[in-house]
Amino acid sequence: MFALRDFQATARAVVVSLTIALAPAVALAQSDPLPSWNDTAPKAAIVEFVEKVSKEGSPDFVPEPERIAVFDNDGTLWTEHPMYVQLAFALDRVKAEAPNHPEWKTTQPFQAVLESDMKMLAAAGEKGLLELIMATHAGMTAEEFSKIASDWMVTARHPRFKRPYTELVYQPMLELLAYLRANGFKTFIVSGGGIELMRPWTEKVYGIPPEQVVGSSIKTQFEMKDGAPTLFRLPQVNFIDDKAGKPVGINEHIGRKPIAAFGNSDGDLEMLQWTTMAPGARYGLIVHHTDAEREYAYDRDTEFGRLDKALEAAAINNWTVVDMKTDWKAIFPSDIK
Amino acid sequence: MFALRDFQATARAVVVSLTIALAPAVALAQSDPLPSWNDTAPKAAIVEFVEKVSKEGSPDFVPEPERIAVFDNDGTLWTEHPMYVQLAFALDRVKAEAPNHPEWKTTQPFQAVLESDMKMLAAAGEKGLLELIMATHAGMTAEEFSKIASDWMVTARHPRFKRPYTELVYQPMLELLAYLRANGFKTFIVSGGGIELMRPWTEKVYGIPPEQVVGSSIKTQFEMKDGAPTLFRLPQVNFIDDKAGKPVGINEHIGRKPIAAFGNSDGDLEMLQWTTMAPGARYGLIVHHTDAEREYAYDRDTEFGRLDKALEAAAINNWTVVDMKTDWKAIFPSDIK
Repeated sequence: MFALRDFQATARAVVVSLTIALAPAVALAQSDPLPSWNDTAPKAAIVEFVEKVSKEGSPDFVPEPERIAVFDNDGTLWTEHPMYVQLAFALDRVKAEAPNHPEWKTTQPFQAVLESDMKMLAAAGEKGLLELIMATHAGMTAEEFSKIASDWMVTARHPRFKRPYTELVYQPMLELLAYLRANGFKTFIVSGGGIELMRPWTEKVYGIPPEQVVGSSIKTQFEMKDGAPTLFRLPQVNFIDDKAGKPVGINEHIGRKPIAAFGNSDGDLEMLQWTTMAPGARYGLIVHHTDAEREYAYDRDTEFGRLDKALEAAAINNWTVVDMKTDWKAIFPSDIK
Repeated sequence: MFALRDFQATARAVVVSLTIALAPAVALAQSDPLPSWNDTAPKAAIVEFVEKVSKEGSPDFVPEPERIAVFDNDGTLWTEHPMYVQLAFALDRVKAEAPNHPEWKTTQPFQAVLESDMKMLAAAGEKGLLELIMATHAGMTAEEFSKIASDWMVTARHPRFKRPYTELVYQPMLELLAYLRANGFKTFIVSGGGIELMRPWTEKVYGIPPEQVVGSSIKTQFEMKDGAPTLFRLPQVNFIDDKAGKPVGINEHIGRKPIAAFGNSDGDLEMLQWTTMAPGARYGLIVHHTDAEREYAYDRDTEFGRLDKALEAAAINNWTVVDMKTDWKAIFPSDIK
């Protein structure tokens, strides 16, 4: 089944490539800043918003320094199924470290990892994930952890797509990030995921530098060790940048209210409210995963990236809801190559 | 005595203005990016560092995104005597709120504020300051606090110089900030002071946007209040961005190691160590307050901005030590107007 899907995806990519290459509207397509978006309502809404806030003299004009856009990561910029990438990373680390921790065989959530009991794991949620991270990723310096994370990101493969996770980012969102920046926006990630797992690669993949990444974190402690200054990672939660924590993280790191927010799950509800329920031109968007063939389809009934309340709120607050199946021409960068 | 000092300062400002206006080297001064720095060792060291890291092909070249420079605020970018500006702000707020808190008359550090007992207050240190802030500045939204801070910054006057605190920033450091940015550096504030007290004005005064300000903070909580999203300020310390907290704050907010750090007190020691004790081209600088006539003279024996261990470390680590009296042509922007 996986093989069939892979074949279909490849076939579609070829068709998309040929269509783009052979269409008579090539010049138009090239000047289009969002070529992987179909000409449906979401694309029109994005362009309308960007034009009105960036056009001097427009009643909705926003000065460039205030054009702050915040993006959730998991499920908004890259694939979060069959599980959060952060969790896949933690599982690999637990397995690698298990020989040094015989007690994990009978302690949750470690036992679930070692027994590959995905249901038990999913039930542990983001909090359980952070527990796994603390146990396996504290007790080393920030630099050491950064190297472990970078190395893993290069070698790990997505179980279905058999590619590095950093290739499973959404092509339409990459175009959106670039489009916003080209119009004077400063783009930030505001993710429930661990900040140190994202920072080594967000600049290269998203064009978002480490200082514009907000995420969950564990506590660190400054120490002079053998005459060298180090930041040692402690097994304590510092901050959980999810749900009601997202506006807190935004205020702490960015210090001003964004004018645009992009998310995909209930974890992004408060961030979208904080961003859009305020005076002036504001924009909110939710990526709805509706494409089981090219990626995944889920909303209310999933442990990873549940979308329920935020979908109801989208209708009330006039947030754009992207239907991945109908609104996105391509899903991954490989679809257009 | 204050009046005499004011007269002297004014007279000097006039002399400096005339000297600059009438000197034959006007053209040279205009092309000099650091005109308020005398041609002494610190200026030469700064220019040498900036040129070697920003010149492509240089063995010490650093790519632009990695040119991160961090600046302490109190005593490094603006005057911190006779007390931290943050403390002056807190004192005014305690006095304004005192009628609602009769218990403060017999509770430290509030009693010290109401009795203007500066010695007792100084002994309370930055921790005591944060206690005052929490008592007087929690229980409101982030937006409300921002307005109180902004309003105060416009009306408050420095007791000696009789000017707004934002005019008591150091002209040579303003030039240094601009010089670094002109050479591809991204400049950040990393201060023990409250982050929300700085952010309303750092962009205008220093050219540093809110998202590049790291500081101490109290906890905030997201709440929907009468249908509107708010961040409510809680009377709990969130983070103290001083001493060993500075590398932690840098790592959390910026996510990469700076290549240049600028401070003036022992509170900056760990930030300077973290920045400079690492491979590659690195630069550390300490502003030494040596000019009682134009500003203040203090180092080991002061409650505000004590400079002791960091001065010893400067010699060992080859950090530049600025002697304000001999190395700075002007102190405040008003000196060159």
